Amino acid sequence: MQKVAILGAGSWGTALAMVLAGNNHDCLLWSHRNDQSNEINEHHTNKKYLPNTMLPSNLKATSDFEEAIKYASIIIIAVPTKAIREVCQNMTAHLTEKKLFVHVSKGIEPDSLKRISEMISDEVPAEKVDAVVVLSGPSHAEEVVLKHPTTITVASENMIAAEKVQDLFMNNYFRVYTNDDVIGVEIGAALKNVIALAAGIVDGLGYGDNAKAALITRGLAEISRLGISLGAKPYTFSGLTGMGDLIVTCTSVHSRNWRAGNMLGKGLTLEKVLDEMGMVVEGVRTTKAAYQLAKKQQVDMPITEALYSVLFENIKPKEAVDILMHRTKKHELEDYKTF
Amino acid sequence: MQKVAILGAGSWGTALAMVLAGNNHDCLLWSHRNDQSNEINEHHTNKKYLPNTMLPSNLKATSDFEEAIKYASIIIIAVPTKAIREVCQNMTAHLTEKKLFVHVSKGIEPDSLKRISEMISDEVPAEKVDAVVVLSGPSHAEEVVLKHPTTITVASENMIAAEKVQDLFMNNYFRVYTNDDVIGVEIGAALKNVIALAAGIVDGLGYGDNAKAALITRGLAEISRLGISLGAKPYTFSGLTGMGDLIVTCTSVHSRNWRAGNMLGKGLTLEKVLDEMGMVVEGVRTTKAAYQLAKKQQVDMPITEALYSVLFENIKPKEAVDILMHRTKKHELEDYKTF
Repeated sequence: MQKVAILGAGSWGTALAMVLAGNNHDCLLWSHRNDQSNEINEHHTNKKYLPNTMLPSNLKATSDFEEAIKYASIIIIAVPTKAIREVCQNMTAHLTEKKLFVHVSKGIEPDSLKRISEMISDEVPAEKVDAVVVLSGPSHAEEVVLKHPTTITVASENMIAAEKVQDLFMNNYFRVYTNDDVIGVEIGAALKNVIALAAGIVDGLGYGDNAKAALITRGLAEISRLGISLGAKPYTFSGLTGMGDLIVTCTSVHSRNWRAGNMLGKGLTLEKVLDEMGMVVEGVRTTKAAYQLAKKQQVDMPITEALYSVLFENIKPKEAVDILMHRTKKHELEDYKTF
Repeated sequence: MQKVAILGAGSWGTALAMVLAGNNHDCLLWSHRNDQSNEINEHHTNKKYLPNTMLPSNLKATSDFEEAIKYASIIIIAVPTKAIREVCQNMTAHLTEKKLFVHVSKGIEPDSLKRISEMISDEVPAEKVDAVVVLSGPSHAEEVVLKHPTTITVASENMIAAEKVQDLFMNNYFRVYTNDDVIGVEIGAALKNVIALAAGIVDGLGYGDNAKAALITRGLAEISRLGISLGAKPYTFSGLTGMGDLIVTCTSVHSRNWRAGNMLGKGLTLEKVLDEMGMVVEGVRTTKAAYQLAKKQQVDMPITEALYSVLFENIKPKEAVDILMHRTKKHELEDYKTF
């Protein structure tokens, strides 16, 4: 039995808290909204994010940030990527002891080009950090709360910490693998949203399954190239956080990035798409970051470049796909010659 | 301009002949049925396999086997796996010169545990073989005839032959990559049908996208392990003929193997499923061959074993999935420790 605080009561933070509460850990779920934490405590629901779901009665919530931080030595950070720095900054004043931090977010910070764990290390003093663990993998929250079989990876430079988090979550429907390749896991998680946007475009153009399979496969190849240039291990990209999460995100109509791409493929402008979505499409920001990162690392990323030209340079989607199809003849494993 | 004979006028053989004819090569398509070759020559259709498709008028057909063999120095073998040996045996008498053989079939022969190119080498005298090339990748024939963007791999131990076949097919919608890893390409092509059956079962059980993504990812890991034990190159499995083809086969409702698995997951017996399908489900045979091959190579293939127990040992699908989910805790890259 462990005490765990979960920061962020969106669908994913809540679903993970349900897994932990179901495993009989003492959980405190922090929401920045008082009405939301009251709803969880009084009605055992979180209707905005998980309609039709009853939360376990041993899952408690709070909107008192200090209370959440002081509650446990394990802190799960489940806030959007752009809120990571602010949450970490706010946390620092309340850290009286070392904590184990687990983050579950997906993205790269524009301009700084930093991964999530790097942002956490930037903001939280090293003497207050026991370890940083990233949890990632192919997982719709909506399926986890139904206890459908799900597999996930926890990665850390500190394998004892990773195994501790593995033990925390593991049960008969939630299967957890460990991995020591933090860079590979975080790059795969962030970049899959770029390829999902492109997959949506290909579907929006009506190009079919052959084209989409090619895009996903060649997409993973360029994600791998970028990751490897940054120090990731090649095989991580064949795993749950690479290929696995990429498949879910590119083939599910529930994926926000895929849906945005689909509208682009059907001819809507980016402005109109973002307007219609009415919420952040993480892949758009990540495309910019990935494009910058590819230039910096001098890595060939034709799909990311094509998508960048569609999003930010007014190239028509069909034209971008045609350019991709007309590249010079290649040996399939040419990309892998550098390692 | 080249002369090419295509043996087998099913949907894939016909679609490939259309690509070649569209590239202005002289093609002769062999069908074992006289009425089918007449239909192609007189009406430019092949309604049984490609309804709603008009064939190019420069695509000729014959039911005279000897004529087809003597027609060209490039022979494309597009017959079902179980007909490979017979076709090669019948061919031998008519071979007056060396030929370049391209096969496009997917499977492993039960008991002999041989790949398609090995079966061809068994049957055709070496002095009549210029080279053997395998063509494989994520490609529904129905989309190729619509000229939707498609990518494919041609693999051979003879790279000059592979590049010749690449030149033959390459055009603005059909993008061809070369590869020298014949074992990896053939193992990936055959084994994807096993995982597609399992993916159908998971969908039939209603387990959702998380479970299916896990299955596809871990499925590719075990295909890779088997292939590598046989001499394949690891990265081939991350390519079009591995991951790419696996994605198409596991996520498309058009896949015959997925459909059979889906019925099994919904509770039908194998006998009843095969009865309802009314045609060969290649994955069932391949599961047996893969199971035997895993034993022989001493490779851990938990999904193949679970599927084998469902197909041939009366284990219930749900029970098999539960067994998979309860394996011991693992490091994600453990499988890769051997290379």
